[in-house]
This record gives sequence, structure tokens and C-alpha cells, in this order.
Amino acid sequence: MSAYRSPDRKRVVIAGGGFAGLWAARALSRSAAVDVLVLDRNNYHTFLPLLYQVAAAELEPEQISYPLRGVFRSLDNVDFRLCCVTGADFHARIVHTDGGDVPYDYLLLAMGSNTEFFGVPGADEHAFRLKSLEQAIGLRNHILTRFEMAAHEPDPDIQRRMLTFTVVGGGPTGVEYAGALAELIRNPIAKDFPDFNTGQARVVLLEAGSGLLAGYPEKLRQYTFRRLSRMGVDVRLESTVASVEPYQVLLKGASPVATETVVWSAGIRGNRTADAMKLPLGRGRRVTVLPSLQIAEHPHVFAAGDLALPSSGESPMIAPNATQQGALAAENILRHIRGEEVRPFKYRDKGAMATIGRSSAVVRIGTHTATGFVAWGLWLFVHLAYLIGFRNRLFVMVNWAWDYLFFERSVRLILPRIPWIERQRHSPASCVGDDENRSQGSGK
Amino acid sequence: MSAYRSPDRKRVVIAGGGFAGLWAARALSRSAAVDVLVLDRNNYHTFLPLLYQVAAAELEPEQISYPLRGVFRSLDNVDFRLCCVTGADFHARIVHTDGGDVPYDYLLLAMGSNTEFFGVPGADEHAFRLKSLEQAIGLRNHILTRFEMAAHEPDPDIQRRMLTFTVVGGGPTGVEYAGALAELIRNPIAKDFPDFNTGQARVVLLEAGSGLLAGYPEKLRQYTFRRLSRMGVDVRLESTVASVEPYQVLLKGASPVATETVVWSAGIRGNRTADAMKLPLGRGRRVTVLPSLQIAEHPHVFAAGDLALPSSGESPMIAPNATQQGALAAENILRHIRGEEVRPFKYRDKGAMATIGRSSAVVRIGTHTATGFVAWGLWLFVHLAYLIGFRNRLFVMVNWAWDYLFFERSVRLILPRIPWIERQRHSPASCVGDDENRSQGSGK
Repeated sequence: MSAYRSPDRKRVVIAGGGFAGLWAARALSRSAAVDVLVLDRNNYHTFLPLLYQVAAAELEPEQISYPLRGVFRSLDNVDFRLCCVTGADFHARIVHTDGGDVPYDYLLLAMGSNTEFFGVPGADEHAFRLKSLEQAIGLRNHILTRFEMAAHEPDPDIQRRMLTFTVVGGGPTGVEYAGALAELIRNPIAKDFPDFNTGQARVVLLEAGSGLLAGYPEKLRQYTFRRLSRMGVDVRLESTVASVEPYQVLLKGASPVATETVVWSAGIRGNRTADAMKLPLGRGRRVTVLPSLQIAEHPHVFAAGDLALPSSGESPMIAPNATQQGALAAENILRHIRGEEVRPFKYRDKGAMATIGRSSAVVRIGTHTATGFVAWGLWLFVHLAYLIGFRNRLFVMVNWAWDYLFFERSVRLILPRIPWIERQRHSPASCVGDDENRSQGSGK
Repeated sequence: MSAYRSPDRKRVVIAGGGFAGLWAARALSRSAAVDVLVLDRNNYHTFLPLLYQVAAAELEPEQISYPLRGVFRSLDNVDFRLCCVTGADFHARIVHTDGGDVPYDYLLLAMGSNTEFFGVPGADEHAFRLKSLEQAIGLRNHILTRFEMAAHEPDPDIQRRMLTFTVVGGGPTGVEYAGALAELIRNPIAKDFPDFNTGQARVVLLEAGSGLLAGYPEKLRQYTFRRLSRMGVDVRLESTVASVEPYQVLLKGASPVATETVVWSAGIRGNRTADAMKLPLGRGRRVTVLPSLQIAEHPHVFAAGDLALPSSGESPMIAPNATQQGALAAENILRHIRGEEVRPFKYRDKGAMATIGRSSAVVRIGTHTATGFVAWGLWLFVHLAYLIGFRNRLFVMVNWAWDYLFFERSVRLILPRIPWIERQRHSPASCVGDDENRSQGSGK
């Protein structure tokens, strides 16, 4: 870490190298008034919108991640430190980390979100999450291992249970993942297991509400439902999970679903580290901030992205909102330094999109909507454009092209290996804000 | 697993999906006389000659591995089962696995080799191995984390210790890895840590003998020594390791080397599972076999590759030998079925090669030798040609081209994450023949 600190520059510490933190760092890098230090528990940035594709063996982990030091190489006044943020002392203006204390003049909290289980019994212990690369890799390994085990399981009930994959939550993440899983099963897996009836494998998508993609235009919601159903996904609306058990999911007012895989994409909440900092939290346990993104009691502390909840206006927990807030937080920090008035945040709605399999998607831009292949092409373009790094874009493009042309899934590796007798979900992580099972025991 | 078994076909079980096993499976796939079942603890084949590049953050794990079911897709009579081989009953003609018993008519043991520590105290517990993808990934993560920690370590002795990387063994693996590490440090790492003196990082290569690459022509051995030295590698010949400790390596008759990373590439031995099978073992604890590759007492059981030691002739523990033996074992199985005489194995020496950094290598073909860039080009060509799968070749080529043109290392991710206070070497594996530390405790 740089020992050099110009006395003329203010030190800005950014907690989190995700969309909000990265966009803020880039905006601040052009200013001679600040030195920036970015903190993250990983040494890379993860392109979360494509994480579900890693979990569906469509992309390799390295293709949606980029070393943060590589991003900051060209930014002279931006430095990086690998550590877990554990707390803060806002009066002394210090951030506590597991690598020591870090003093700041300005602090931007951009630690993102954790999975929200709504207190459903067993969900925390038994469900898979989709918020980090390690989780996506573990989920991919688990699913591939189900097929390997089922291939010579003599008991048909157990076999069917192994081949039932349950996704909880019919928002964009759940829809995209259910579709990707259905395709993984229908094509590459079916070819990998020629003598085995993989047709009995099924994806169950549970949504508590009356339709998928809540908040999307009605036309797109219905298209999504029809399309997923045609792909063989068992979509169950008005289905609320009562509890999650090792070998089944109990529903309210409906029969249980026998399954060995439950993926929880039903809700997110602000990163848990904010609790440790004793910050004011609002809906979704996000940090309440002024329209300027400052914390009311600590005007040198800002929050942006999933973690932040401005007191007025929209703030959806999606990437475009995070990048816009990161950029504004940076601008307001500079304004504050110069003694100028800060600007309020106003979310510029650029639209919404979600894929449904290999050649279909739903897209809304303003009030215009599109479905099918055209929408999918647009989805492809937008996501490629936002990926960091030419090499990543090239590899992702090749992987997608390969998959599209050959109905293939190139990344069907079970790595790291899962011991035969237990489903391994041991995580080496130990940060407060981790999205992991608190008890950290091995699964069923 | 296929329940269908033609009564006319003999069942050949191949334990191991490495070079020997794969080449045997392919050879047998053309015969209507057999059904083949390949067993492996992983669902993918690893191209081990390039494993060191994964450990040096040069290649991604997926680029040197290929799902075995993908390889067998086009081979009608070849099936796969994911399991650990634990033993065998040669009289009942059964292979024991952690997924149940597997009967055979013919058995080919091709489980490869494990790391050999020669009883050096502390080596098993503290040294890193380079025999599996998980190990290579763990080693890569460990090295990158040393730099992250050293970047703000106030004590210069500890800092230097963190940045000293010790490779034990001056054979091809040690030479290639030491060179790759030296390059990783000098270019991408140096750029990633612009304010930090990465120049104090060093690679120490310890060789017990009087020169590197024992068995190679003298000219190539000297070239390798000079080239590595010019790259900044601290090559120490006549250096024997007395013991390995958490923070240092003790040498016989020389000062200890303070280090937090010890990579053991000083020796290999036959896979440990052979011990459990109570097979006759020879030098290097390899299974002794007849020139036909059959086990003398059990003519229906063959061994090929690193695991096998024919009673006459050469049998170097390298890939070309494994592929040749795999092919011959297959041929002899078919001959045996037909009642024909089996053929003896004779190793066809195609030469030897080793890289020394980004644009240099040493190559011997027959009695001809080459060094430098031409040799490197040849090395590149041979390794690309042997990689399985067009997509893998394409990606590896792009990675190498990128690295060569931009002095880059594209894969500098610490994934999965290592907890701050401990070096994580927990392995989820639990197979007898694993190359892991038996006590499985977490490291220092």
C-alpha cells in the first residue's frame, strides 16, 4: 500500500469494488484533489449480472471477473487493499478492517447486498445462494454431481429427487437461472448421459406472487411465463415456501417438492456489515441516506448502490442504479471538498431486461418493449459492452457463440471436487458481510 | 450408468481418465468385442503438462481440462463413472469404489502418480504440490495473497519472507514453474503494485544434483541454468532439503531459506491406491508388470502410464510414455480376447522439451537439440496439438498471445478466497490416491 500521501489531497476510502465502488473510483481518479483507496474482500470485480451463467456451466468464473489492480493500473491516484471491512468509527474517521485500521477524509460505503431469506426456516442452512463466484461454482458443481450420482442410483424416488432443481423467486435472477438450467439439462447433459433418462430431470420455479418478473410490463410477464413453460420449466405461481429441508421444500397450502437443490433468488437486503457499523437502516435493511447519498449524521460518509436507500425517489437494486449512484457520490465528494452545493440523486431509468434461454429475452426501454430473438440480441450487446476488459469480452463471446451454434455447455467441470458422501458447502470465507450460512456446517 | 451389457462383449474397466486411460479407451472404442467403463475421481481430464501455468496465473483451470463425458460422447461403447477407486478383488474380478463395486472382465490400472517427499520432515504438511487442478489453483491463490499481504507488511524481514518463493526440484516441472513464476513477478505483478517494491520478490530453485534437467543433453542443461539465472531465479545446485517448516526451508550444509511458499516438484511415485490393492511394487512404488503390461499373477489386469513399471526397457514418467502404454495395453487386451499373442512394450523416445519463460525453451528430438525462440515455438505447437478440444486450444492460444504481446497475466484472481489469518489448504477431496496432506489440517 502506498505510504505516500500528498497532504494537499483528501483521502477517499471506498468500501467495495462492485459497480458503485468502481464507477466512483473512476470518476474520482480524474481529480487532483483526492487520493482513493478501494477496499474489497476479493482482489477482483465480479460482473454479477452474468453470475447465473457460471452456475449453469455456461461461462467460466474468470470470464466475468477482473482483477481490481488491473482496473486501477492506469489510475494514478487509486490504490487497492485486500481486506474485509468489519466496522467503522465515524467520529475518528477510521474504517476497521481485518488487516488493520484505515483512516479516511471521506468514506463511500458500497458493499452491496446479501441474500434475504425472510426468516424462512431452513433456508439459510440448506439453500444455495447466487451472490458470489464461489457460490456459483459450488452450485454448478453440486448440480453436475447430482447427475453423476443419479446415473447409477437404483431407487427411482431418490433419483427423481436428485434430478429436481428448485429455484425460489420469480424475479429476473430466478427466471434467468431457471431458463439456463433447463437448457443445460436438455442439451449438453442429455448428450453427456446417453444411456440415462435425463428427461426426468426438471426445474421447478416457485414464485409467491401472481406472476413472474414483478414490475415488468404485463406483456413481458406473460411472455416469460409461456416461454419458460414451453422450455419445460415447472412454473408455480402463488407458491410460498414454508420451510426448506435437506431433501424437500415445504410449501404453504401445496404438496412438498422433493429436491436436493434449492436455489434462493427470492430476495436481497443491504450488506450485513452495515449492521455492525450501527448505521440507520431502512427498507430491505439498506442504509438510509439523503438525496445527496450522504449519511445525515455523518456528511463525510456516503453510500451508493444496493446498500444505499436515498430518502426520496427510486433506487432499484440493480446495476445501472449502482453505477449512477457511484458516479454521483464521487461528484458530490468533490463538490463537498470545493465547498459547493451537492446534487441530489435521480435515478435515470434506462429500462430492464432478462434472458429466457439461449435465444430469447424480454426487454423494456422507456415504454417500448421487445421479446424474442431481437430482445436477446440487445441483451447480449448490453452485457458485452459492460463487461470489463477486451479479453473477457472476447472469451465470453466465443463461449456464447460456441454454445449457440453447438448447443453445448463448455464448462461442465466439477471443480473443486465434492466428496461422495457429503454435499460440500464449506466456504473458506470469513467476512462479516459474507452471504454465507452462519453456522458454516457441511450440508446434507 | 448403462444397465445394458451385451453378453457378447467383454467388459473392460479403466481406472483413471488421464493420458494412459484416455488413449486406451479411444483404442478400445473401435472394437465390437468390448464395452468400456472409465472410472475417475474427477469428471474431467487434466492436461497436466500445462498445470504449472495455472499455478502461475497464466492459464485458467478450464483451459487445460475437458469433461470426460464430452470425450466419450462420440464413442458408443465407452461409459464413465465418477468415483474413487479404493481397492480390488482380483479373483472375483471386482473393483471396489466409493460408489459401489464394479465387476470387470479386464482391468486397466492407469491412476498415475502422487508426489514423493522422500521422507523429508515437514514436506508433506507444509509444501504445495503440483499434481491436480485444485492444488494449482490453491497455489496460485496463495502466491497472489502473499503480494497482497506483503504490500502493507511493516516488518521488512516478514515482507521478504512472504515474497520468497521456493521451488524444490530442478527437473522439467521445477524449471518450468520457476521460470513462469519469475515472469509473473517481473511483469504483471510489478504493474499491479506500482508503489510497492516488488523487486525484492525472488524465486529460489533448489536442486540436489549438480545440474538442472537431469537426463537432458549437457548443452541444454547449461543453457537452462544460464537462462533462469538471467531471469533472476536464484538457482542453487547441490542443495538438499533437510526439512520444511512453516516459515523456512532447512538445507543440508547451507543456511535456511526464509519463505512462506514451498513448491515440491522433486519427485513422484506410483499412485497410492496401488498399495491398497496389494500389488507388487518396484522402483518409485510403481506396479511391476510384464513387458506386455500385464500383472504377472493376474493376466486380466494391466497397468499403464506413470503407475506402471515394465520389467524391461525404459518407462519414463511422462505423457508420451503414458499414451504409448495406454494404446498398447488396449491392443493387448484385444489380442488376449482373441487368443492371440500379446506384444511387449517398447518406449519410442520422441524427445524431451521444457520451457524457460515466455520465449525460450530447450528441446531434444532424437539427438538434435534446440534452444531459444525456435525451441519455444516447437514446444507451443506440440502442447497445443495435444490439448483436447478445439475450444480449449483457441482459448489457450488467445491467452498465450495476449500474454506474449502485452506482458500480461490474465488470470490474477484469488479464487476461492483465502481467509486472512490462515493459509487455507483444506481440500474437499477424500480419495485414497489423492496427493493431499494426510492430516488435512489447515496450514500455517
